Amino acid sequence: MSLYVQKFGGTSVGDVERIGHVADRVKATRDAGHDVVVVVSAMSGETNRLIDLAHQVSPRPNTRELDTLMATGEQVTIALLAMALEQRGCAARSYTGGQVAVRTDSAFGKARIEDIDRHRMDSDLQAGRVVVVAGFQGVDGDGNITTLGRGGSDTSAVALAAALKAHECQIYTDVDGIYTTDPRVVPRARRLDCITFEEMLELSSLGAKVLQIRAVEFAGKYNVPLRVLSTWGEGPGTLITYEESEMEQALISGIAFNRDEAQITVAGVPDQPGVAYRILGPVSDANINVDMIVQNVAEDGGADFTFTVHRSDYERTLELVREAGTELGAEKVEGDDTIVKISMVGVGMRSHARIASRMFNALAAEGINIEMISTSEIKISVVVAEKYLELGVRALHTEFGLDAPAEGMGESESLEPV
Amino acid sequence: MSLYVQKFGGTSVGDVERIGHVADRVKATRDAGHDVVVVVSAMSGETNRLIDLAHQVSPRPNTRELDTLMATGEQVTIALLAMALEQRGCAARSYTGGQVAVRTDSAFGKARIEDIDRHRMDSDLQAGRVVVVAGFQGVDGDGNITTLGRGGSDTSAVALAAALKAHECQIYTDVDGIYTTDPRVVPRARRLDCITFEEMLELSSLGAKVLQIRAVEFAGKYNVPLRVLSTWGEGPGTLITYEESEMEQALISGIAFNRDEAQITVAGVPDQPGVAYRILGPVSDANINVDMIVQNVAEDGGADFTFTVHRSDYERTLELVREAGTELGAEKVEGDDTIVKISMVGVGMRSHARIASRMFNALAAEGINIEMISTSEIKISVVVAEKYLELGVRALHTEFGLDAPAEGMGESESLEPV
Repeated sequence: MSLYVQKFGGTSVGDVERIGHVADRVKATRDAGHDVVVVVSAMSGETNRLIDLAHQVSPRPNTRELDTLMATGEQVTIALLAMALEQRGCAARSYTGGQVAVRTDSAFGKARIEDIDRHRMDSDLQAGRVVVVAGFQGVDGDGNITTLGRGGSDTSAVALAAALKAHECQIYTDVDGIYTTDPRVVPRARRLDCITFEEMLELSSLGAKVLQIRAVEFAGKYNVPLRVLSTWGEGPGTLITYEESEMEQALISGIAFNRDEAQITVAGVPDQPGVAYRILGPVSDANINVDMIVQNVAEDGGADFTFTVHRSDYERTLELVREAGTELGAEKVEGDDTIVKISMVGVGMRSHARIASRMFNALAAEGINIEMISTSEIKISVVVAEKYLELGVRALHTEFGLDAPAEGMGESESLEPV
Repeated sequence: MSLYVQKFGGTSVGDVERIGHVADRVKATRDAGHDVVVVVSAMSGETNRLIDLAHQVSPRPNTRELDTLMATGEQVTIALLAMALEQRGCAARSYTGGQVAVRTDSAFGKARIEDIDRHRMDSDLQAGRVVVVAGFQGVDGDGNITTLGRGGSDTSAVALAAALKAHECQIYTDVDGIYTTDPRVVPRARRLDCITFEEMLELSSLGAKVLQIRAVEFAGKYNVPLRVLSTWGEGPGTLITYEESEMEQALISGIAFNRDEAQITVAGVPDQPGVAYRILGPVSDANINVDMIVQNVAEDGGADFTFTVHRSDYERTLELVREAGTELGAEKVEGDDTIVKISMVGVGMRSHARIASRMFNALAAEGINIEMISTSEIKISVVVAEKYLELGVRALHTEFGLDAPAEGMGESESLEPV
């Protein structure tokens, strides 16, 4: 008998029928002899409905009141799910964030969890009840209702799992796990049985939107095993944990990509201290996030400075950098908003030196020119022309042995629980 | 500078535009130098939407969870109203029943208020803020969310006014006050400036559905002056207080009526103890409410026993009473579901003996036969044939001087605040 925290997102509880399905799943875990704490989001569509109401009342709604409003979304779901469980003969009690209590700071709309009181949950679990907790919300020291910000339900689930020392925190979603890459781009992408927190962080920050990055950080910090699995299917999903010796370690776990990139180059600037700041200062002052940054010293002693931004910020950034370039006496400022970023992630990289050259070679073999390169301990990112995205990702997926076996061959073992 | 508790019902906050209108009204009171605590209901339609959801999940929803669900209705309204006030430059803070805290017993769905903590409200009022409280809800000693039952927002408002020793509890509704009778029946019905708690209790129990009877009882018990007035107009409404010597006391304050009555007569039963019980026992066992009861001893020593029930219970009651009548050896059991009840209410009745005979005389003058009579200290009710309802009410309204002056004559003074 173990304790599981199970989190179901907005789509999973999107209507009354789906809430019934979730109740069936929770009851099945309970019937298998486990304790269950369920964390739920607002029914899909509800959050947007409430935000619309707020904006009809005020263009910039008071943040304390906005949190009080938004918190009703999950409160509806917890009550309905607890009713559905009781209806199935499965004793259950719902709690708002304030009732648990999930204690947060007072940063309305983006509060951080400080402490969780496990007292009430413990006594319900001991009495054989399923505990249903509203995700995304908490209460500050003055009793004000707070919210953790959009997607914060994942964080609530992980924080509850940490506080309760749960065996596992299970995040139920629309997908059946984390894949080696986007199956829409690479049909032979494979579901991963395991991945490390570090790898997941690199993959989620690169746009694989299955899990909230904050929740993964939190899970890593408190060493809470996280499992991503499908609300609708029966597969084992993907387990996210710390690297363990017995894990068979692939060189590369996954390949992420980002289509929304644009690149700007300032050529022939003086190679001296302060240049990077004079170029990027105005950009960050304009609240534009800069992603990759590369600087090369040219043969003539001048420097070329290149960086990427989100494509929607391209025009504005180019304008700002042209001004800075003029002041610096740059030879030219040019940009390209038809580029993409491809990143390979894997803890196996740490112990294998030749990964980068294998990557560059595989891309070169397809005639793909690399425009920028950036590396970290467990990630290599390259910028290439947009037209090469699919070709590049597929080439790397094959080169690093990530392709699933051809249809009908093996892999049936991956359907058994890990 | 006084403290007002202002309560706005579901229709008054039915959409975003109306919430804006309520914010304007509250701000006007605040700008006039008064402190304001606002109590609001769920937006109209919301309560039914939530109940529908619950019944889709479970035919008999768990009552604790149902209260948690229902309480979201008012929580949405308090947040939106507080935003609307802040948007207008009027500092405001919203509180759920649990946050105030409005402490209740644990009778989910029909909880009773036990205690109200005024601490948070006091500090907000002192800081110049409007306090916006969710009506209809509270919290029990274990931190569970409770609701007071439908219409409980009136009770919340009165309880808050009592706890805060407010100058007045103002109930804003769709009508501009309490009328001498239904203006749809008597076009010359008049708005009352004042009425006593006792009279209001008699009138509301008779079907004038402006105020919740429990709220009136509560207001009477704690001597909270209650004012019913229109959300949309500017009139002074009707003040409900204890009888005061300086009040100019009309003989009759109002005339109520009830169309949904049916009468059943058991004739020629033995005039002996236990007969009433043997007739009415089976009726109340069937959860049928009996309203008026009259028993006459006939000349031959037998008794006639007559009572009224709600018209929808007529057939069932007749069946039950026929069985009882047979057992008792009654001469006959007969019924009539085309009767109505007309009631005159007024504290002035206490000191004037001839009211009843004047009433009977006025009805007789119109050729209206009285089928049953029942009296209490401040009320006389008669049962008459349905066809005489309008004629009877109008005759009494005129007889007891309740008619408004003809159009264009006087009464303009009634538009000034009392």
